[in-house]
Amino acid sequence: MTVLYGLDLVGTLVFTISGTLSAANKKLDLFGAYFTGFITAIGGGTLRDVILGNFPVGWISDINYLTVISIGVVLTFLFKAYIMQLKKTLFLFDTIGIGVFTIIGIEKSLSLGIHPFLSIIMGLFSAVMGGVIRDTLCNDIPLIFRKEIYATACLFGGILFIFLNSAGINSSLNQFITISFIIMIRIICIRFKLSLPVLSH
Amino acid sequence: MTVLYGLDLVGTLVFTISGTLSAANKKLDLFGAYFTGFITAIGGGTLRDVILGNFPVGWISDINYLTVISIGVVLTFLFKAYIMQLKKTLFLFDTIGIGVFTIIGIEKSLSLGIHPFLSIIMGLFSAVMGGVIRDTLCNDIPLIFRKEIYATACLFGGILFIFLNSAGINSSLNQFITISFIIMIRIICIRFKLSLPVLSH
Amino acid sequence: MTVLYGLDLVGTLVFTISGTLSAANKKLDLFGAYFTGFITAIGGGTLRDVILGNFPVGWISDINYLTVISIGVVLTFLFKAYIMQLKKTLFLFDTIGIGVFTIIGIEKSLSLGIHPFLSIIMGLFSAVMGGVIRDTLCNDIPLIFRKEIYATACLFGGILFIFLNSAGINSSLNQFITISFIIMIRIICIRFKLSLPVLSH
Repeated sequence: MTVLYGLDLVGTLVFTISGTLSAANKKLDLFGAYFTGFITAIGGGTLRDVILGNFPVGWISDINYLTVISIGVVLTFLFKAYIMQLKKTLFLFDTIGIGVFTIIGIEKSLSLGIHPFLSIIMGLFSAVMGGVIRDTLCNDIPLIFRKEIYATACLFGGILFIFLNSAGINSSLNQFITISFIIMIRIICIRFKLSLPVLSH
Repeated sequence: MTVLYGLDLVGTLVFTISGTLSAANKKLDLFGAYFTGFITAIGGGTLRDVILGNFPVGWISDINYLTVISIGVVLTFLFKAYIMQLKKTLFLFDTIGIGVFTIIGIEKSLSLGIHPFLSIIMGLFSAVMGGVIRDTLCNDIPLIFRKEIYATACLFGGILFIFLNSAGINSSLNQFITISFIIMIRIICIRFKLSLPVLSH
Repeated sequence: MTVLYGLDLVGTLVFTISGTLSAANKKLDLFGAYFTGFITAIGGGTLRDVILGNFPVGWISDINYLTVISIGVVLTFLFKAYIMQLKKTLFLFDTIGIGVFTIIGIEKSLSLGIHPFLSIIMGLFSAVMGGVIRDTLCNDIPLIFRKEIYATACLFGGILFIFLNSAGINSSLNQFITISFIIMIRIICIRFKLSLPVLSH
């Protein structure tokens, strides 16, 4: 669990930075930026825990999340120009983040006896709802609805995880394989500009 | 309960279709359309169960909801042009849907000892919040705030249900009367173009 | 607790009026106005209780909140022009409201054993999330992200409350001091047009 916990904090940091940058683009003040970074980082996990009835929700009983989020906001505020140049690094960490959040969501759900298919959905919620709330607050149509393969990578990763899990594979190995798989899908899709069909008029 | 359960699944299907069509109008991709359909279908009931502290929320412990939603998205994707022509049929099912959702919300709340007035509000939440979340995600001001008698039909239906319930009427009969009443109000309002006064400047 | 409870109802009334006025500016119908006023009034407290796992949420087990909200909507509807002229009075009550909501949120969290820093965040959520939801529903970027010192006043008030609390000061006195402090910060900031730095491009 310690590796996954560390990666969870890394994901939290990267999600905070993405939320804070969004707020900056909308010219929100320092509080608005902090708040948006915070919601982006904890939104998905909070919604997952609330739907599962898993109280108290994760970040409210572990001060480390608040610490990491605060560091993320301060870093973004101080080194914004520099962070903007790290796009590729951020992209990699963001992809690790959604992979980790997907797996944590699925494992929590399975451990509560939730149906595997619904557990995959809970994994997706964990990974993408923070960003959905961020975009809704900033008055944009959620990015994941319109751009590239993102949630879909989590979806396929989730299906692979459930498959390997039911095949009896060791949990840590399964986590490693699935997160690598999610990262691979995203990189391939970006490289070849793959996207989903649009449900047009 | 079986008739109400069947109608609940019908309502879920129709709400899914309405959410998926909304997503199509905004040119969301397949995932965005699925997601929006999903949220529209389960949003109201989820919020109701969360506020009531009634965990796990309904759809997370019954795979049938996910199945119906998936069918709804696929149907909309395959037969979009045809479905758009079925406006009157969809309207009827949608009205049945909000009627059923209202009743389920009220009955769940009453069974938990909630005050009748607050139970009506929980019924309303069940019926309309899925659509409110759908419109918010799609960056529109929620439709129910601006158009025709919709939530108001649920409100009057809810009041009738509470009245008949306290008068000792059989629950199944009460459900039938109330849902018919809600359908009747909506049809009359559409026919005669009735709407609520606007709180203007 | 009785003074705080009374002030809580006052805050609920003022938040209802602010939500209903927002709806009026967007030309929502009577139901939309009621709904927006309702959500504005109970949104922050509901989110706080849900995150804390504190069920049932406050207003669902105490009919007084619904009564106060209904009065607020009717008052706004009947005396809208007059209420608009009471801007200074409304501002004062609104400031009392956010102060009270902040304190209630912090005290509830502390009593559940939440970390003091996270309790401050729960206090902030109680105070500002109703307004955030109101603005999101009305399709605006939340006001608190862009205008004046508002949430920041709650933040500093919360820090003061935690400090005095850990110094062993009597709870009622602490409430009085903190709420006065929040009101003072807001008045000073408005008077001298102080605002937070913007995280610009």
